[in-house]
This record gives sequence, structure tokens and C-alpha cells, in this order.
Amino acid sequence: MPHISLDSDEPGILGLFRFRPETAAPMNALAEVLLRGESTLSRGERELIAAHVSALNQCRFCFSSHAAFAAAQLPEGMELVEQVRTDLDGAPVSGKLRALLRIAAAVQRSGRDVLPEHVEAARAAGATDLEIHDTVLIAAAFCMFNRYVDGLGTVAPDDPAAYTAMAERIVASGYPSASAGAEARDR
Amino acid sequence: MPHISLDSDEPGILGLFRFRPETAAPMNALAEVLLRGESTLSRGERELIAAHVSALNQCRFCFSSHAAFAAAQLPEGMELVEQVRTDLDGAPVSGKLRALLRIAAAVQRSGRDVLPEHVEAARAAGATDLEIHDTVLIAAAFCMFNRYVDGLGTVAPDDPAAYTAMAERIVASGYPSASAGAEARDR
Repeated sequence: MPHISLDSDEPGILGLFRFRPETAAPMNALAEVLLRGESTLSRGERELIAAHVSALNQCRFCFSSHAAFAAAQLPEGMELVEQVRTDLDGAPVSGKLRALLRIAAAVQRSGRDVLPEHVEAARAAGATDLEIHDTVLIAAAFCMFNRYVDGLGTVAPDDPAAYTAMAERIVASGYPSASAGAEARDR
Repeated sequence: MPHISLDSDEPGILGLFRFRPETAAPMNALAEVLLRGESTLSRGERELIAAHVSALNQCRFCFSSHAAFAAAQLPEGMELVEQVRTDLDGAPVSGKLRALLRIAAAVQRSGRDVLPEHVEAARAAGATDLEIHDTVLIAAAFCMFNRYVDGLGTVAPDDPAAYTAMAERIVASGYPSASAGAEARDR
């Protein structure tokens, strides 16, 4: 049960977006730019970074959601998400994506854990400054989203179909659709 | 030296905002709602929560900035910021603010560290659901801002006057002023 009364049965961050539309709007705008805006990283690759950080933070709602969003937008589907989660060193991803995922894992521990070696490895594998920037910010943003969702004790559905349905909506309509309409609510 | 080329000498998050205005805008909008928007917590109290989380994350730029922003908006000034940082249990704050700061400290470790006891203590001290919500999200957001600033290796000024000058601008004009004009930049 959530730690506060959300007046809604919506799981995870969705109930929080409805409770506080004033903060939902910029949070969804940030997710939209980072995960779906113009980028030389594919949407699937960026969702994979988000899912990986959420797994490291043990946030079940965010991991299940972004794993589904990544799987829906990667040719290799959920199998790759699970390979990255369980064995990043051995997962069949490009050298560049592996180096970016290692930067994201450092950010998950602490910003201070990102070392020049991490950044040099990514650059040597072909990553641009903008890709490195966006990887750090995606990882940092999921340290926020994960803590928001779990810090308020929200509920995560057990049924995988719930996440597949969310994936369909996000892939089709983007993140602002997650809080659309919430602005009309009275508190 | 920052891990990426920012084409700017601006310290901390300011150089990052200039590098990537597309993400700066929603990040500043979120900070504005949380730290300066309508609330039953004063602006000084909310900046104190931001400063406390930044201290726990050992983010020198964010702690120095938000300590200055808190000090500028609290009757007790910087002395109270330092008392909270070094001895939360003994600092002369209300029972409600102390309970909210304890929730923020739990969020800094992990969202999963916020226990029903933390929330019950805050509620017993008079905190509303919205105050608890905003405290969790302020703490979560600073786990993002801190990782963003340190994960890209940005520089923090040594001179306290740099933070006092920033405080004057934020208190007068708000967070969107921190990225105003950056949109005009060519990359």
C-alpha cells in the first residue's frame, strides 16, 4: 500500500502523476527528451539504459516498465534486456553500448564513481560527448524516478500484461500521455 | 575538468544547462515547482531538504548552491544549514521538519529505505500527504541533480561569493533563469 493516499488505483508512478500533475508534467517532458527525442542512440538502447539502472536500484515497477518499453523497441526483445541485467560483460551489445551501460552503472552508485577511464572507454568505442551526457542524465534521472516510486511505497503489478499494455501506449504516444488528463483533476 | 567538452566556463550544472538546453528546461521547471511553487513548506525549508540530500551525496556544487539558497531564505541563515548537516537530531528545527529531513535521508540511500515508521513519524508531527510527497520527490530529484553534476565531472567554485551571487539570482528570479537564453545557443 502506498505511504500516502493517492485517491487512485493506478500502479507505480502513474498514481503519483495523477496525485501531483504539477510535477508530473516536467518529469514526463524530461523522459520524453531523454528516451524518445532526437538522438544517435536508438529508443530501444536508451530504454535499455533506463531498465538497467532501475534493476540496479531494485525498483520493480520501473524495471518491469522500462524492460517492456526496451523489449518493444529492440530487435532482440526481452532476451537482450535480461542478458544485460544478468551479465553485462557477456551480453551481445556493441562495444559502445556496453561502455555506456558501464557509465550508467557507475552513476547509479554515485556521480563520483564515474571515472575518466569509464568515459575514455566509451569515447574509444565511438561514443560522442552528447551520447555520454545523455547516458549520465538518463541514469541520474532513473535514480530519481526509482526513488520516487519506491520512496512513496507504490504498488507494482504482478501481471506482465500490465507492462505490455503500458509499452504499447508509450511507444505509440510518448511519455506526456502518461500524465495527460491529470491536470483536470481536483485535489 | 568536466568529462565532456562543454564549450563554456560556467561551473556545475550551469555549464550542463547550456550544453543541453532541451533537458535543462524540464529540469528547471521541476525545481521551480518543488522548491519555489505554492506549498505549505517555506522556500527556505525546501532548500534545506535539497541541501541536506546534496550533502549526503557529497555533491559539493549542489550542496554549496542550495545551502546558500536555503540560508538566503531562512531567518536562521547558514548556521541552521550547518547544524542540520552535522547533527540533524540536535538541530533547532520543528519536529515536522526533522521528520521530513529523516525521510529525505532515507530516500538518499534508496527509495526502499523509506519505512512506514518514517512516514508515521512525519504525520504524527503534523505533515500532510502533500508535504510527504514533495519531500520524497525533492530528495529523489537531488539524487538526480547530484549525479548529473558529479557524473560529468563538472567544476565547483571554491569562492563562497560565487554561490551567494547565484542565490541572489535564484531568490529574485527563480530556476528557469538558470537556463534562460541557453536555448539560443548553436551546437
